[in-house]
Amino acid sequence: MKLEPQIMAIVIGTTDISLIPGISVAGASPELTHYTPALDVEYLLLGMPKTMEVIPVTPEGIPTPALVTRAVAGEVAKLVVNAGSRITPKVPYVDLGGEPGRDFRRGPALSCEAARNILERGRALGCELGRLGCIYIGESIPGGTTTAMAILVAMGYDAWGRTSSASPNNPKELKIAVVKEGLRRVSAPLKPLEAVCEMGDPVHLAVAAIALGVSECGGVPVLAGGTQMAAAAALYKGLGGDLAKLHVATTRWIAEDKSADFMGLMEIVGVKNVYIAGVSFAGSKYEGLRAYERGAVKEGVAMGGALFYALSKGKDVLRLVEAEYERLLSAGVAGNVN
Amino acid sequence: MKLEPQIMAIVIGTTDISLIPGISVAGASPELTHYTPALDVEYLLLGMPKTMEVIPVTPEGIPTPALVTRAVAGEVAKLVVNAGSRITPKVPYVDLGGEPGRDFRRGPALSCEAARNILERGRALGCELGRLGCIYIGESIPGGTTTAMAILVAMGYDAWGRTSSASPNNPKELKIAVVKEGLRRVSAPLKPLEAVCEMGDPVHLAVAAIALGVSECGGVPVLAGGTQMAAAAALYKGLGGDLAKLHVATTRWIAEDKSADFMGLMEIVGVKNVYIAGVSFAGSKYEGLRAYERGAVKEGVAMGGALFYALSKGKDVLRLVEAEYERLLSAGVAGNVN
Repeated sequence: MKLEPQIMAIVIGTTDISLIPGISVAGASPELTHYTPALDVEYLLLGMPKTMEVIPVTPEGIPTPALVTRAVAGEVAKLVVNAGSRITPKVPYVDLGGEPGRDFRRGPALSCEAARNILERGRALGCELGRLGCIYIGESIPGGTTTAMAILVAMGYDAWGRTSSASPNNPKELKIAVVKEGLRRVSAPLKPLEAVCEMGDPVHLAVAAIALGVSECGGVPVLAGGTQMAAAAALYKGLGGDLAKLHVATTRWIAEDKSADFMGLMEIVGVKNVYIAGVSFAGSKYEGLRAYERGAVKEGVAMGGALFYALSKGKDVLRLVEAEYERLLSAGVAGNVN
Repeated sequence: MKLEPQIMAIVIGTTDISLIPGISVAGASPELTHYTPALDVEYLLLGMPKTMEVIPVTPEGIPTPALVTRAVAGEVAKLVVNAGSRITPKVPYVDLGGEPGRDFRRGPALSCEAARNILERGRALGCELGRLGCIYIGESIPGGTTTAMAILVAMGYDAWGRTSSASPNNPKELKIAVVKEGLRRVSAPLKPLEAVCEMGDPVHLAVAAIALGVSECGGVPVLAGGTQMAAAAALYKGLGGDLAKLHVATTRWIAEDKSADFMGLMEIVGVKNVYIAGVSFAGSKYEGLRAYERGAVKEGVAMGGALFYALSKGKDVLRLVEAEYERLLSAGVAGNVN
């Protein structure tokens, strides 16, 4: 099966869970994680971030996976979808009438109205995009591996400690403790939409809704992401989606992450079509890219899907990524590797 | 040249000019014209309006051209772009960071920031869409033939009384008087962006910006609309666009409108590639559709482009439009022809 994307939809949003110190490295500090989705898509579309003068980096200065997506799939049409981000990007984006996710330990993550909007409008958007054929759907939401675990657990899946992390040191105990604290407020298992409203975030629901619309209107949805896509796939399935029509593409770094269980999560959800982009940055001249081989970053902003596509096109991905990183370093917007 | 659309982008927005009694029939009353863009795209995507329980109709009850676009080009992917509408639609839409247009007789129509956002983000969106190939760009903005005349005149084109109308009785004297009153505030000729900020509206600039982006990134922009597209084409040209790469497709009703001068406007702007969809509703069993032959409606919501595309596919367009109208009449959402 040929899975060449007509469009890559990048769904952005924030959850206040990412503000918990130590839970997310998708930003140089907890506060900066809320800027990451906006900066990611500004950079992805324009080649430069706009809201701040630096692309998202981890506290160690390792660059955002958006770098890889832009470098290896620059010619693919991108569509930014804002499911609910505290910082709205300064590029065109599809608005789904959602809202930023709140800290689910204190109360529901999303209002019912926001969740309903995201579901209805994400589905309508997916239906239109699906008319084009194959649609990749990626995400940028710091804290997303924690909310993904929370959604899965709230729906009754045993996902405890099985989602990945952008950090080489997956803070699993912290994430589990946070999810457990949130779960005290509810009586799991919950229905899909309830699980999202209580324990989720805007992004995973939007990814599921778009995928649902794509497949309902004759297109082929490819979830371009890691363990978080288990939560999106579970929602897709729970909302009536046909898993035979759903595809997931991710990176080798996710598939090989021993701190998580990507294949196990795909299995318990029932995802049938999984693709791993086997690429290595071990030979890179840049420390910021070699760090990917040590478990930094791993996924995000459709990187796995972009690599899967680029490899299928026979591209020399490391050369492309290095050239793009060089451009950003020269421009002084790539941060500093500590 | 084959001009098959990958995506139809429908740009919506409002101008307070449409509130002037007698200037626009794109709504059952002046106040309702502000609902027309939202209702048009809700209906176009979902098959039913959401914000109100009726599709847009003229004061005589003649249905919106969105009916035709949906009926004859339902399988084409649609993307709603909100350039600045007082009523935001309850469907997914791309936000360009624009704002609704104000009455240019009292002051500038748009803030500089809104205009800059529309230009930059429309262009960025167009660039992404352009990677897909041929992109149709339509519009829904009541009062748009007046603001189109105003933009053209402000840029130095002799467009006095040459734009069309959704009414069989083009209120040209009123429109000319309104534009003249606005012009007193400025010293024409103005540069493109100044003309829009002072005398324009969000939609024509967004159409031009998207077309610019499409053509800059290798795609083929087709402006799907009537005399208003002369204003969009003039902006496109004034902003550096190559008119050889631009196409305009409209209806026979516009081309044959003796109260306006579609071909003349295309000529003074320098548009080279013009297509007229030669279709007739004279044989329809519905009064609401036969009214199109008497000069009601004429264009809007990419109707001309949709008909041009459908005819090239050999579709029986009148049969399709009648079936869709019948569905809406049965559902009680098509209004009543007076």
